[in-house]
Parts: sequence; structure tokens; C-alpha cells
Amino acid sequence: MFSRVDMFKIAKKAIIDSGEKVQIERYTVPGVKDLPVACKRLLEEYGCDLAMALGMPGPEEIDKQCAHEASTGIIQAQLLTNKHIIEVFIHMSEAKDDKDLFEITQNRTHDHALNAIALLKGKDELSRKAGQGIRQGRKNVGGLG
Amino acid sequence: MFSRVDMFKIAKKAIIDSGEKVQIERYTVPGVKDLPVACKRLLEEYGCDLAMALGMPGPEEIDKQCAHEASTGIIQAQLLTNKHIIEVFIHMSEAKDDKDLFEITQNRTHDHALNAIALLKGKDELSRKAGQGIRQGRKNVGGLG
Amino acid sequence: MFSRVDMFKIAKKAIIDSGEKVQIERYTVPGVKDLPVACKRLLEEYGCDLAMALGMPGPEEIDKQCAHEASTGIIQAQLLTNKHIIEVFIHMSEAKDDKDLFEITQNRTHDHALNAIALLKGKDELSRKAGQGIRQGRKNVGGLG
Amino acid sequence: MFSRVDMFKIAKKAIIDSGEKVQIERYTVPGVKDLPVACKRLLEEYGCDLAMALGMPGPEEIDKQCAHEASTGIIQAQLLTNKHIIEVFIHMSEAKDDKDLFEITQNRTHDHALNAIALLKGKDELSRKAGQGIRQGRKNVGGLG
Amino acid sequence: MFSRVDMFKIAKKAIIDSGEKVQIERYTVPGVKDLPVACKRLLEEYGCDLAMALGMPGPEEIDKQCAHEASTGIIQAQLLTNKHIIEVFIHMSEAKDDKDLFEITQNRTHDHALNAIALLKGKDELSRKAGQGIRQGRKNVGGLG
Repeated sequence: MFSRVDMFKIAKKAIIDSGEKVQIERYTVPGVKDLPVACKRLLEEYGCDLAMALGMPGPEEIDKQCAHEASTGIIQAQLLTNKHIIEVFIHMSEAKDDKDLFEITQNRTHDHALNAIALLKGKDELSRKAGQGIRQGRKNVGGLG
Repeated sequence: MFSRVDMFKIAKKAIIDSGEKVQIERYTVPGVKDLPVACKRLLEEYGCDLAMALGMPGPEEIDKQCAHEASTGIIQAQLLTNKHIIEVFIHMSEAKDDKDLFEITQNRTHDHALNAIALLKGKDELSRKAGQGIRQGRKNVGGLG
Repeated sequence: MFSRVDMFKIAKKAIIDSGEKVQIERYTVPGVKDLPVACKRLLEEYGCDLAMALGMPGPEEIDKQCAHEASTGIIQAQLLTNKHIIEVFIHMSEAKDDKDLFEITQNRTHDHALNAIALLKGKDELSRKAGQGIRQGRKNVGGLG
Repeated sequence: MFSRVDMFKIAKKAIIDSGEKVQIERYTVPGVKDLPVACKRLLEEYGCDLAMALGMPGPEEIDKQCAHEASTGIIQAQLLTNKHIIEVFIHMSEAKDDKDLFEITQNRTHDHALNAIALLKGKDELSRKAGQGIRQGRKNVGGLG
Repeated sequence: MFSRVDMFKIAKKAIIDSGEKVQIERYTVPGVKDLPVACKRLLEEYGCDLAMALGMPGPEEIDKQCAHEASTGIIQAQLLTNKHIIEVFIHMSEAKDDKDLFEITQNRTHDHALNAIALLKGKDELSRKAGQGIRQGRKNVGGLG
């Protein structure tokens, strides 16, 4: 609810556009700290193979701490389920202005939705993209050597 | 006990005013770091489906650290029970003065009590509120795009 | 052992003075980071219903980090046992001088020993003290509204 | 994928060059925070005895926090599996320039691949190297006394 | 391996000099973050009753973070095994020079080896040393009151 962009809509579109057969379950929570248990329930109670945790932490110090706590919990939820949770957090402080915020959100959510699909296919599916300095939602940095 | 406002009273009123049939159990602890196990016991030993963790961390650095430790524990408690714990922390440093502190406490506790009820109804109940930059206890920021 | 005051003695006296029938087990460890497992053993192997973790972290940055790690572990120990561990940490940096340090230690340890007894009686035992800005070992801040 | 150097290739070469018979499984994930569960799956579902977590966190504050969260999760994954995960993180901020970054990455990944092999041989295999101030990917500091 | 002093040798000597019958197992790992799982394995797979985690974190910010992550993991390993792990970390930044570093390492490792033996004897063995401001590896601060 905190998020200023409907990130679910972007992720859903990316998945549908990919042409892959993926069944989607939506779970909306008040804030990012409610995401870990929501994702765990999707993986354990709703039969999902992978979850995406979509959130937009605010620009204040306390928001960054909440995001840190949420991220720690999301990692724990993965270890308890042995399934991936792709965290897509857009920090408001990353963006220059509203337009920039929208673009980062659009790009990162889209790219991570495709990453999620790749991870479902197999552990080696993303290997050809390794070592190239790829950044989701930003210009890539490029590979060395 | 640390809290300067009776947050339980506010949450209880919000729940009763909502007209929903919800049975309430109260558990009072000395400080915010005692909340994780208290909430876990409510969920496991007292048969609750959801817990609200109400606390008011002080303005000092050490208080912020206590709140961070409590939040981390609250997330763990959720992962161990697969149930939601809605954390409602009012940081004293958020408020300009006592009146502001009271208003933030009143609004955030009220709004989160309604969120808690919504989560009990189903995982999609809050979806229509997603992507709109909603802030509990403060003016909303608004949605983009 | 780090502590400069015999906090166990203070807690024991408070419990005996309260007139409540409580059986006490003592467990002494080298530093605060040894407290989580010691408390967990008291709760699981020595049949205790509640533990008090008494410690006095030093004034250095590294001491504060140790206290943070200990606190995190104490919360985890509670979640694993579903029992309360009342943490009574006196940070040396809280005190103006040795006399002040002694007084804070005396008051906070005493007050928390009484809180511990109350928690053993029931989850609602401390409710009448909620929302009043009570501080253990310091002047209370007072309630609002 | 974040990494600017193909660290897997370096680790694989070090293992093959060592002449030890080691079977290698590759698992590529989008970012360092996806490593803990990927390593745990390698150890639990793919029959690996040890995992190497290869990553290159960026230079920003948020990247450092991600690395911290990933490291915490990697330690938890080890505790849950009782197997080693050798973390090889190259922080971009460690390097003076691209050439330096490449060299640190090459050296540290190579050295840690040999450490991984040694740990597979037995708990005392690295003992003769203890107490000598050895640094992977940098000049050693040397022993005292 | 990071450590610049052979801390195992110091601990072993202290244990032998104490005249207590203690059987010692050695486990050497590349860095402090590998200690939690190594200690857990000593406690669970090698039949040890207590572990000592000996390490010497470097002076950089990243080294301090590694030590923090290691400490957190060491506490978790204790909670999962209900056994003590005595952490003996010498932070390079604690010492004025190499001679000072050697002395702190010598004293703290020695003192903690004796603490470890005491903890094996019983939970009350260290009680007569409580409340006296004892510091391992440094001058004691002294007790109050």
C-alpha cells in the first residue's frame, strides 16, 4: 500500500507478455515488513513455486531500516521454504523526480519478473547473463576482462 | 508500558466501531523487545489468528536500536507461525510535540486496526488500496502513473 | 562478569521482598553475548518459566554492538521457547558517574524483577500500567490524552 | 548477474588446475540476496558438500546493506545445513580502478576455491596456515610472535 | 587464517596448564564468518561440549561488519545446540601497536580458555567473579557498591 506505483500490474504484464504459462496469486499487505510472512504463505499455503516481493520504501532513515528488516525476513523465508523470493524494492531516495521514480519502478519490476520466470526454468538459466555487470532498473555497468 | 498513549484502547475502539465480529485478547509487556514472544504466544497459545504489536519507542539512539531488534523479532515470529503481526510503532522522534504525538498515535493505530481486519478477510482484501502511496498516521503521498 | 554491580543480588532481593513464592536459579557467564544460550538453557534444561538477562555493556562502540547482538539472540531464545526473558541491560554510557550508574542499576533491576513476577501471573497483569510512559530505572515520562 | 567479472569461470579453473576430483554444479541468480537460498538448495537438493557464494556488491550504501543481508543469510544457511558456504564477495569500493578490481577478483576467487577444497578434505587441513595474517586477494599482513 | 597470532596455541596451553582433563579438537577456517558452522559441527558432529571461536577481525569497516555477522551466527549456533561457544575476537583496531596486539591476544585468549573450563563445570562456577567489572585481555574496571 505504501508504494506509489502499482507494481503488481507491471509484473503481471511482464509475465503475460513473456508468453510463459504462469499462474499468478496476488497478496497485498500494508507495508514492506508484512511481506516476508505473506510471501512465505504464498509459497507454503497457496502452492506457489516462487514469490515476488514488491515494495517501495520511503526516503526517511526509518524507512530504510524497515526495508532492511523486511529484506532480512525475506531471506529467512526463502531459507525456510527452499524457494526463491525475488525482492523488488524501489527506494524513493533512488529517484531524481517522480518521472524517474516511475521509470525505475517500471524497468526493475519488469526485468525482475523475467528473472523470476528464468529461475523457475532451472538453476542454470541465468548463467549466460553472469559476469556482465547487469543492473535491474538502471543502465548496466558492463563486464571486465 | 513505555508507551505514553493507551494504544490498546484506540485499537479496540477501531475494531468495535468497524462492526466486525472479532474477539480480542490483551497482553501487556514491559517494553517493545518483549513484544515478539508475547505476540507469538497470542498466536500459538491463545488461538489468535493475527496479532497487533503496539509500541512507542523513545527518542534516544538506544530506543531506536531496541525498536529495530523488536521489529526483527516480530518478523521472525510471523515466519514461525505463518500468521500476520501488524506492528504499530510510534517513534517519539516522529512528532513535533505532544499533540502531534497523540494524533499520529491515534490515526496510525486506528488505520492499522482496520488493516488487520482486512488481512483476516483474505490476501486480496487490501489490493484495491495498492499503489497509491498510502501512509498510516500521516498524510498520504499519492500514486503515480 | 563484565558488570560492575552485582545485579543478581538486587534482583534476588526484589523477588524475596515481594513475598511471592519464586524459586531462583543462577547462571553466570563471561559476557552479555553468552546470555542468550544461558537463558535458553535455564528455560529448557533447568525448568525455569522465565529468565532475567542481567548485563552491563561497556561504553565503547564495540560494547554497544555486543549488546545489540546479545539482545537479538535473547529475542530469538524467547521465540524458540515461547517464554519471556526480561533483559536488564545497563549501558555504562547512560550514567553521569559511578553513583548514578549504581542507582540506575539498582532501580531498573528492581523494577524489572517485579515486571518478571507480574508476567508470570498472567498476560494481563501489567495492563493497568500501560500507556503511562513508564521508564525502568529512570523518571517516568508520563501519559498523554 | 551483478558481478562485472565471471567469477564462476575463475573458481572452476582453480578447481580443475588443483587436480582434485571435484564435481561442480552452477547456479546463477540475479543478485547477492538470492545467493543464500540458492546455496542452500545446492547443499540440500543437488547433493553438494560445499557451496561457494560468488558476488560483487556495488559501491553504494544500499549495495553494502544488501551484501550484509546476504552474508547474514549465508551464515544461516550454513547453520541449517551444517555445511560450509565459502562467501567470495568483491566489493567494488575495494578497488582503485578496473584493473585492480579484476586482479582482486581473480586472486580472491582463486584462493577461496583452494580453501573450499581444503575444507572438504578435513577440519584440520588449513591449520598449518593459521596465525599468519593471510588475506585472500590482497597482500598478506604476516604473523606475530 | 586471518589472525596474526596462533590463538589456538595459546588456548591449548592455558587448558593444559590448568591441569583439567579436557580433550581438544581443532578446526581451522579461512575467516571469521566460517566460524559459526565450524563451531556447530564441533558441537554436533565431533561430540564437543563447548567450542571456542578464535578470530582476529581486521581494522577496516568491512572487517567490523564481518565480525558482527560472525558474532550473530555464533549466537544462533549456540541457540540451536544449547551449548556455549566462547567467542574470542581480537579487533586489530583495539591495539596501539604489534606488541600491544600480541599481549591482548595472549591475555584474552588465556582468560577465556579458563572461562570455558569453568562453564563446563557448572552454571554457577563463575558466580563468585560476577559484579566486579572484569575485562578479559585488559585491566579490570572494578566493582561498585
